[in-house]
Amino acid sequence: MPIYNPPLKDLEFVLHDVLKIHESDIKGYDDLDRDFTSAILDEAGKISRDVLTPLNAVGDSEGCVLENGVVRTPTGFKEAFDMMRDGGWTGLGADPEFGGQGMPYIMHTAVGEMFASANMAFNMYAGLTNGAYEAIHAHGSDALKATYLPKMVTCEWTGTMNLTEPHCGTDLGLLRTKAEPQDDGSYKVTGQKIFISAGEHDMADNIIHLVLAKIPGGPDGVKGISLFIVPKFMVNEDGSLGARNGVACGNLEEKMGIHGNSTCVMNFDDATGFLVGDAHKGLRAMFTMMNAARLGVGLQGLSQASAAYQNAVEYARERLQGRDVTGAKNPDGPADPLIVHPDIRRALMDQKAFVEGGRAFMLWGASLIDTYNDTGDKDVNGLASLLTPVIKGFLTDKGFDCTVQAQQVFGGHGYIEEQGMSQFVRDARIAMIYEGANGVQALDLVGRKLAADGGKPVMAFFDLVKTFIKENETDAALNTDFLIPLKAASKDLQAAAMFFMQNGMKNPNAALAGSTDFMHLFGHVCLGLMWARMAKSASDSLARGVADTEFYETKLTTGRYYMQRLLPETGLRLARINTGATPVMALAAENF
Amino acid sequence: MPIYNPPLKDLEFVLHDVLKIHESDIKGYDDLDRDFTSAILDEAGKISRDVLTPLNAVGDSEGCVLENGVVRTPTGFKEAFDMMRDGGWTGLGADPEFGGQGMPYIMHTAVGEMFASANMAFNMYAGLTNGAYEAIHAHGSDALKATYLPKMVTCEWTGTMNLTEPHCGTDLGLLRTKAEPQDDGSYKVTGQKIFISAGEHDMADNIIHLVLAKIPGGPDGVKGISLFIVPKFMVNEDGSLGARNGVACGNLEEKMGIHGNSTCVMNFDDATGFLVGDAHKGLRAMFTMMNAARLGVGLQGLSQASAAYQNAVEYARERLQGRDVTGAKNPDGPADPLIVHPDIRRALMDQKAFVEGGRAFMLWGASLIDTYNDTGDKDVNGLASLLTPVIKGFLTDKGFDCTVQAQQVFGGHGYIEEQGMSQFVRDARIAMIYEGANGVQALDLVGRKLAADGGKPVMAFFDLVKTFIKENETDAALNTDFLIPLKAASKDLQAAAMFFMQNGMKNPNAALAGSTDFMHLFGHVCLGLMWARMAKSASDSLARGVADTEFYETKLTTGRYYMQRLLPETGLRLARINTGATPVMALAAENF
Repeated sequence: MPIYNPPLKDLEFVLHDVLKIHESDIKGYDDLDRDFTSAILDEAGKISRDVLTPLNAVGDSEGCVLENGVVRTPTGFKEAFDMMRDGGWTGLGADPEFGGQGMPYIMHTAVGEMFASANMAFNMYAGLTNGAYEAIHAHGSDALKATYLPKMVTCEWTGTMNLTEPHCGTDLGLLRTKAEPQDDGSYKVTGQKIFISAGEHDMADNIIHLVLAKIPGGPDGVKGISLFIVPKFMVNEDGSLGARNGVACGNLEEKMGIHGNSTCVMNFDDATGFLVGDAHKGLRAMFTMMNAARLGVGLQGLSQASAAYQNAVEYARERLQGRDVTGAKNPDGPADPLIVHPDIRRALMDQKAFVEGGRAFMLWGASLIDTYNDTGDKDVNGLASLLTPVIKGFLTDKGFDCTVQAQQVFGGHGYIEEQGMSQFVRDARIAMIYEGANGVQALDLVGRKLAADGGKPVMAFFDLVKTFIKENETDAALNTDFLIPLKAASKDLQAAAMFFMQNGMKNPNAALAGSTDFMHLFGHVCLGLMWARMAKSASDSLARGVADTEFYETKLTTGRYYMQRLLPETGLRLARINTGATPVMALAAENF
Repeated sequence: MPIYNPPLKDLEFVLHDVLKIHESDIKGYDDLDRDFTSAILDEAGKISRDVLTPLNAVGDSEGCVLENGVVRTPTGFKEAFDMMRDGGWTGLGADPEFGGQGMPYIMHTAVGEMFASANMAFNMYAGLTNGAYEAIHAHGSDALKATYLPKMVTCEWTGTMNLTEPHCGTDLGLLRTKAEPQDDGSYKVTGQKIFISAGEHDMADNIIHLVLAKIPGGPDGVKGISLFIVPKFMVNEDGSLGARNGVACGNLEEKMGIHGNSTCVMNFDDATGFLVGDAHKGLRAMFTMMNAARLGVGLQGLSQASAAYQNAVEYARERLQGRDVTGAKNPDGPADPLIVHPDIRRALMDQKAFVEGGRAFMLWGASLIDTYNDTGDKDVNGLASLLTPVIKGFLTDKGFDCTVQAQQVFGGHGYIEEQGMSQFVRDARIAMIYEGANGVQALDLVGRKLAADGGKPVMAFFDLVKTFIKENETDAALNTDFLIPLKAASKDLQAAAMFFMQNGMKNPNAALAGSTDFMHLFGHVCLGLMWARMAKSASDSLARGVADTEFYETKLTTGRYYMQRLLPETGLRLARINTGATPVMALAAENF
């Protein structure tokens, strides 16, 4: 049975030592002193470790079951969901006007990492609800907000996102679900949606489906898409539940992982729906929901890597196998622990350096969202938008790789389901796919975000890197170990962006052929920047003479590993990008 | 339901155009003309496509079931196994003295790729039997050979390899299974073995377990290990089956994949065993079995990549989603096929370039085994031994990556079990683990094979690369596109080997910290060499004026992709190796 140790100290290190949230003047951050954040993280950590972790394997082995239109969640999920609800965890970041705790997004993120690490499938029920909440909160009328949001904040009612249809995933312009206007201002929604996470289950009194559909007579393609609320049960004037609406779960998908979450085929048959925002402008509202979801999925990638890594470390310390080639480390035992072996350490260091760098990246990203929410600063929003596909794509690709490496540490035992390592791999796998497959993230990054606003956001990113280097290069140790490698990596990223600018205009494929490489190159520079910032904080703390020197020394050592062994991947990614369109596009489709 | 198209043309291209097997004077190769090989491959391809492929999903969903000590294999497996037996496929490469067809290992490999692509779990029953056959054939007494081999060649009796125990996998010195000598020359074997593939099942009359055990009073550690035959049913003098022996399946493991193969806990309780080879020299015999198994596992990695790739291509051609940014390719349809998108092509080209390069590498490796079997040339054996961990480790790591990429092409549909792409990923995963986890392969490569025989094998490899380049560099196109990149990659490999030589003596960890990087670096140079050789063959064919120019042009294009986009990974691997032991070993175990 896998263990989970909430990474409280690491989270606080990023929040307070690196991002210094309490010293910043972002709205809501003035409450976030160390005592306050530690009380919250500590409590969330306990729930993650003691309640959610033991249910993770249960969810995987039992899965969800559909019987007579009702979906039964795994044993213990309902009780745990009640507990989350009662503890106010579901509305942590939500608007106090609707009963939320109004905490900054950064706290939602820090807490969410632990919940998702402990039980990714379980955490999706609240996560999807939060995405739906965001869309209604940003685009719904006051009446809709008043009717739906309070119950969604508490997760008495949960939410879903209904985008995909059997023939259309990424290409939403193809969708066929129809919404016919009715005399009373409502719509009749008819169509089939697939891959609907938490589409039906037994943990909430009502389920609020957000559904993309076309109003007949509207524009073709994505310009004719509108967003609707379709509740499972109609809501009466007084807020009580009325008749069952024309929406039902037709089937549950059998998936590779996240078995504890119900993935539904949803059939809408003249279901009553209510327009959210303007007709034909559903895509904008959908993107509100989607952007939040993408950050959440990036967090899932990180969370599975973190949980899997912890278990790999524990196994490597306990399993006795072989001897240290430089001399026995456990001479009285029959063999040395796995962790003495260099290749095992290499795998563990890869994971550790990614997880800690990724955590800082994630929380930094969350602080940008909070800054934008507070100030409405367009440049901050531009930077956050630029980084969103990197957070989603890079953290889930690398997060998955880490779970595979963690499983590998267990040898044959890692392949046995009982051990739990397979589940981390199978669960993490979906994060590379949903909310826009990672190839779509790369396309979004290179085809849209890079050139957005005349390239201002990416220039702002480069400036940020340059400024950090300039401000700190007099620190010789920091400079040698962190800033010089960061500068080289950032130069690779600039060269790649330059290549796209010079070649992408006349041949878009010259840029798109390198899009996934660019996303990874960008991700590495971000983690390089994070490690440089963490190293500076750690050095400062050591210089100040903190008590726990080991913690900060370990940060520096782990950071150096990242800079020396992982960051140089930027060179390979650039080399690939520079080969342009030809190698990728040369074959005719029939010659594959 | 996944499809499978036997890659007949690609196999024949490698066998005849590249390796020119029929022109070589290796024993048995004189029979292998194009008509003969094509008749065999064609027939094996049909069985793979029509019989084994449809059973692959059945095996995955049904799995094996243990009831009252009997293991039931999935529906249809028994009939298919009978068919393989009746067709003589199980003894293709076996010694005619014992009823085999005596075909060279290279044909066993070419046919085996297709069988494993179609149904990896099914093919393991015969594969394990073949490994056990090899060990008995090489090390057993004439009496043992006469008793067991004929029935194993036909797979009327299947075989197993019993190495692992709950507390000991890689570190066989720890094993506890005991073999007590009896007055009649036999032994009584007692102990528990785990992860025993095909340990018990309903497809054969008898199961011949090869078991590593310790004879009490023998040397400690691996020097005290002996190898025994422990049949499920005792064999009477006349060859008929006698009493049940004291060996039974105690449990079936629930695994991430290869559900169609029974992975057993085997309990030996005073089971009668017969010594194979000399007492305490079991490790040598085990390595015979293990080396064959390692090549077979490398082939599994390749085979899953090949099958998954084919399905990804088919899906990318059929699934309509989005438009080609350079202009619609399917203007009359609602959208263009996925294959127009550069990032989808990038993923497909990665897979194609790996699969075809890996296939050539695999078959070249097999030709070295045949050469050694024929000539007993120690240098050839040295080279084959050097390449074995590269074939196993590199082809399974990359093969797994390819299955993940293939699954990714399917988007959300790839995550649904029904689609079959998840199975390729889950099945391929074990190949990185068993028969020596890939970290152990890297250790074997760097810690043992590299320095073997004073470094002669690796020098021979470098010479081989150099000679090929020298002989062909006057061909300007080949030189620019293939030989110059190959030379650069080979230089990286030499530099890495040099680093190990200069640093590994005084600090073994300086070499071992880079062992996995070295294995991948080596693998890339091997595939680079294969692509250069394939490019030369393709150019020659085109210059000769062959009819099917498209096939050969496609080879050149795919090869250029490999050289331009994948081979440059060698630089990154070398950079990591050059960082030595410090980054990897710096942390104390308690600071992970």
